[in-house]
Amino acid sequence: MATVIDGKAVAQTIRSEIAEEVRLLSQKYGKVPGLAVVIVGNRKDSQSYVGMKRKACAELGIKSFDVDLPEQVSQADLIKQVHELNANPDVHGILVQLPLPKHINEEKVLTEISLEKDVDGFHPLNIGKLAMKGRDPLFLPCTPKACIELLQRSGVTIKGKKAVVVGRSNIVGLPASLLLLKADATVTIVHSHTSQPESIIREADIVIAAAGQPMMIKGSWIKPGAAVIDVGTNAVDDPTRKSGYRLVGDVHFEEASKTAGWITPVPGGVGPMTVTMLLKNTLEGAKRYIEQNN
Amino acid sequence: MATVIDGKAVAQTIRSEIAEEVRLLSQKYGKVPGLAVVIVGNRKDSQSYVGMKRKACAELGIKSFDVDLPEQVSQADLIKQVHELNANPDVHGILVQLPLPKHINEEKVLTEISLEKDVDGFHPLNIGKLAMKGRDPLFLPCTPKACIELLQRSGVTIKGKKAVVVGRSNIVGLPASLLLLKADATVTIVHSHTSQPESIIREADIVIAAAGQPMMIKGSWIKPGAAVIDVGTNAVDDPTRKSGYRLVGDVHFEEASKTAGWITPVPGGVGPMTVTMLLKNTLEGAKRYIEQNN
Repeated sequence: MATVIDGKAVAQTIRSEIAEEVRLLSQKYGKVPGLAVVIVGNRKDSQSYVGMKRKACAELGIKSFDVDLPEQVSQADLIKQVHELNANPDVHGILVQLPLPKHINEEKVLTEISLEKDVDGFHPLNIGKLAMKGRDPLFLPCTPKACIELLQRSGVTIKGKKAVVVGRSNIVGLPASLLLLKADATVTIVHSHTSQPESIIREADIVIAAAGQPMMIKGSWIKPGAAVIDVGTNAVDDPTRKSGYRLVGDVHFEEASKTAGWITPVPGGVGPMTVTMLLKNTLEGAKRYIEQNN
Repeated sequence: MATVIDGKAVAQTIRSEIAEEVRLLSQKYGKVPGLAVVIVGNRKDSQSYVGMKRKACAELGIKSFDVDLPEQVSQADLIKQVHELNANPDVHGILVQLPLPKHINEEKVLTEISLEKDVDGFHPLNIGKLAMKGRDPLFLPCTPKACIELLQRSGVTIKGKKAVVVGRSNIVGLPASLLLLKADATVTIVHSHTSQPESIIREADIVIAAAGQPMMIKGSWIKPGAAVIDVGTNAVDDPTRKSGYRLVGDVHFEEASKTAGWITPVPGGVGPMTVTMLLKNTLEGAKRYIEQNN
């Protein structure tokens, strides 16, 4: 039976480490990290994510700058807000909650965020430096960074291992592959055009599942002893629940946990780690800025 | 027996296509593409590469801007030259021949080249856009672009195939992997920390060998019918030659050509294509600039 990686517990440990660093920073320089969380409109899911992020900031002593804009805000006004946050020396990280309303060009808005405050790590220059040998991005994208942290803190060796990443999104699959490659794994990227993904996944010592396909990865696809990190968070109908649904990952947890060496559950695996990595990026950005300017 | 892909012939075809486009551009706008080739010092190999590039420009009607700087030139003066070329509207591509002398920081100099003239495609912002779905770099790095052109012009399907890239350099292996991924191959990157690379290569429908290891890939490692693109150019001792050496690839050509479906020879495979892709990038940069400014 696999060791179930408790993402909540790992996240809690890292949050304590962050809180301690925030305390030291405040003691030494009289300053704390600042994270601006920008939300446009009233989407319920976005409101809930943003609420979580702001609450987590408060818990760790990170100052949260709340920017709530109406659904109808113009792209120009949103960009003006981003520029003001870029110029504000107390803001060390800027997060614009996605998706934005249709009349706004997301790519354009994200590119306006100062590189030094791109705590999401989505700027193409950051991705380029992540891809290249001998270069380092200012920030690593939060979810891929969470996957690597979970592996490392569980004692899973990455160097020299076969890693398979299922999915190639800009937010998870692609940067996760690049991070694993930088950590000297032999990396294969599997996606919707891959034929017989199961035969490739069966060879993997490390599986990162980020396809957004509920329970697509069966227990029989997992190599005995493999480490399985499940990024999928899919809502499936469940009439036995009051809500009418439950959350499942991209991996069939019940089956796979019989074969894998390590596995993350959904929920309670990667999820709680992602916001934690955002806070860690904010801390790192703040340290870089404060130490250079004091 | 494999079809031997004649890189020289494919390069010749593409050069004719470029020459024709240059002629049309000149006819329509009275302007031709311009490529600045900057060389520092007297390294014999660099001199020979630069000579080849300048000669190729002349043959296709591309104006070559020759900047020859002494070994002792300061980094500041070299960067000043790059800035002047950035500002020159007749220059559409800038190539700084590597390696630069030790007292100069290559990364710093390359970053000074205007993105619109980065015909080598090595800028991290270009690499980031190459990596990301839905984004396109202004220029593709020449050697990886050459590999893809050779596959496509030989009628090899990439989409849905298993591709293995051996080597992960910033110049070849890494961007080649990203290009294959964008073309919907299932990509695995094999490198010096990979254990049993032969078992992975044996599964590949497409192999791109860019490890710089003479004849490391044996015939028995090749899946019957696979397409093999050999980027390696290694000098090995050969007392039967007047020069005392001969060039070999990363693939054992004699053995592999018995199993592969397609294979590139060394020399005469990828080599002649790389300079051709540089010229093609210069043409593309010139078209973009001239069409926008006329």
